[in-house]
Amino acid sequence: MAQTPDPAPGASSRITISVDAMGGDLGPAAIVAGIEKSAEKNPDIYFLVFGPKDALTPEVAKTRLGDRCEIRDVTEVVTMDAKPSHVMRNGKGTSMWAAVDAVKAGEAQAVVSCGNTGALMAISMLRLRKLPGVDRPAIACLWPSRNPGGFNVMLDVGADIRADEKDLLQYALMGGSYARNGLGLKKPRIGLLNVGTEEHKGRPEIKNAHDLIATAAPDGEFEFVGFVEGGDIPSSRVDVIVTDGFAGNIALKTGEGTAALIREFLQDAFQATYLSRFAALLALNSLKRLSKRIDPRRVNGGVFLGLNGTVVKSHGSADATGVSSAIKLAFRLAESRFTERLAARVASAPVARQDAGQENTAKAGHSEQAE
Amino acid sequence: MAQTPDPAPGASSRITISVDAMGGDLGPAAIVAGIEKSAEKNPDIYFLVFGPKDALTPEVAKTRLGDRCEIRDVTEVVTMDAKPSHVMRNGKGTSMWAAVDAVKAGEAQAVVSCGNTGALMAISMLRLRKLPGVDRPAIACLWPSRNPGGFNVMLDVGADIRADEKDLLQYALMGGSYARNGLGLKKPRIGLLNVGTEEHKGRPEIKNAHDLIATAAPDGEFEFVGFVEGGDIPSSRVDVIVTDGFAGNIALKTGEGTAALIREFLQDAFQATYLSRFAALLALNSLKRLSKRIDPRRVNGGVFLGLNGTVVKSHGSADATGVSSAIKLAFRLAESRFTERLAARVASAPVARQDAGQENTAKAGHSEQAE
Repeated sequence: MAQTPDPAPGASSRITISVDAMGGDLGPAAIVAGIEKSAEKNPDIYFLVFGPKDALTPEVAKTRLGDRCEIRDVTEVVTMDAKPSHVMRNGKGTSMWAAVDAVKAGEAQAVVSCGNTGALMAISMLRLRKLPGVDRPAIACLWPSRNPGGFNVMLDVGADIRADEKDLLQYALMGGSYARNGLGLKKPRIGLLNVGTEEHKGRPEIKNAHDLIATAAPDGEFEFVGFVEGGDIPSSRVDVIVTDGFAGNIALKTGEGTAALIREFLQDAFQATYLSRFAALLALNSLKRLSKRIDPRRVNGGVFLGLNGTVVKSHGSADATGVSSAIKLAFRLAESRFTERLAARVASAPVARQDAGQENTAKAGHSEQAE
Repeated sequence: MAQTPDPAPGASSRITISVDAMGGDLGPAAIVAGIEKSAEKNPDIYFLVFGPKDALTPEVAKTRLGDRCEIRDVTEVVTMDAKPSHVMRNGKGTSMWAAVDAVKAGEAQAVVSCGNTGALMAISMLRLRKLPGVDRPAIACLWPSRNPGGFNVMLDVGADIRADEKDLLQYALMGGSYARNGLGLKKPRIGLLNVGTEEHKGRPEIKNAHDLIATAAPDGEFEFVGFVEGGDIPSSRVDVIVTDGFAGNIALKTGEGTAALIREFLQDAFQATYLSRFAALLALNSLKRLSKRIDPRRVNGGVFLGLNGTVVKSHGSADATGVSSAIKLAFRLAESRFTERLAARVASAPVARQDAGQENTAKAGHSEQAE
């Protein structure tokens, strides 16, 4: 984190995070508790919280948030099974919509929601709009790794849409920018997820993306390590893993599921005998450290990349610790003025100019934007 | 395993496994050591071992295999980076080809290889041929799980080809048959891997496959639990996870990579302090049990489903323990006459008849076979 850039000189250090208090599995109580946790750790952070006043006022009253947290009364809620297309047409009165709009209006520098991922992406695209030059926004997650910083970045992990080679190239550019700004890496190493590391393997769009990313690397302030496999996601071979939303989502949930299974097996092992229970007591501190290293709540927060504004999607099942991690991530990105830096990166990327050349007739307006 | 069927009455209990001794990362020594391990545990198992005699004779001489292991001198080897198409044209003199041919000739009841997966599938399809009614063979792996038997099945995990809805239905039928014969489950629960459990999510071919599999379930001796996510792969919600080869391969390697990362973190935790090292000593037996539960060598062996013969692909990096697990799996499937049972299942499945109706003009010969 040492290289995370300081806020622009003269800028106020006060950051306001907009929070959608509804849509989490544990209800608004867990979300307000997460807000309080973050506020305790960080004196520069303020909150706008969106949801039904009746439900939120008693929760906030239990805390010591005081005037650092303002409740905005919104009665409707986006349900977990709502279709994104429905929410785009009818979601205006929901807490999710209002929380995103606070970023659009400049009242907050980032928004955090535990709600329906598809709906959050749809509302964010509608209200914040894509950055010039971005065709398809992506969701990036952090992954515990063997690297010194402790985390790798993977994107896209959120969507069920298919990515073509140009989308994958944009993911590489956006993921590289995120790693520079969010993880403080000067020249992140980027890998493209595939079913083998040999260059003849994989689907055509992945092979084409390989060549596009390799070509963009010299000007892109990143190193391209080529194809990586599922086993490389937590490795120190790579900092950023690029893939389409389908494979990324499956990898993410498989990794979480595997970690949860091993945690259970470990608990079983230590409860098997009196001797092992005693051993667990002796090793308590070491086991706590281990547990923290693989605690999925610590890496909670998928960041939407490619929008005019910072949106962090927390796990639906996040408790106070998880919500607090997502807020911390949103704060760090807001503080580093990440969106502005990412916009500059995408706009100056060779792909934008290349697109303009290739698709001059088809989307002239789009390619002008990309310049 | 209690329900694994006995061999047919009157059949000899002697089973011969054909082993490709070349192509593993650790060389033929590890493979011969794995053969010896298996032979020690199981008196009914015999081996045909394919590779250069000069290399194999001294390795076999070190063991107590005696006349239970016959070396067949083959000098050429399929390399890890060989293209399947090249191997199909030029692979005739290789140990992999010869080992597969032993199953074709009826000299062995199953074949095990640590070599190049794509080449092994290509040679197996060419020499053993697909079962009548199977369009696309699949590779099934075992996955440590919370189920009483300790394992779930996932398929396809091996290929980079795209599967359409009919392929996914066939994977469900083949995976169900494998779970009945290989895991002894009477009515396995089958789930279809997706990025969410809601029915409106995912790619069109996956939504169509959902409906096809649901329709086939009543006659298929399996229960269809619908969509499952990456986190459900090791769960007790499901016994068989169906997906295309790309997502399956990525999930498999991600799961293995996550487990390896946590094992490293666990070792770090126990070496952190004198107290934790002492604790590890006290908990040694419990930790060994845990380590065994998550040891990837114990679930080594991808089974090729849909061919006229049993082919088991071992990890390239398998050591003697891994090779022995793959041989054990091959033995168990050979003993249960799995290929014959799977053939009967696919031939009697509704999809075969449905295909015959739909594609009557296009592939009449094929659909006659499917009956």
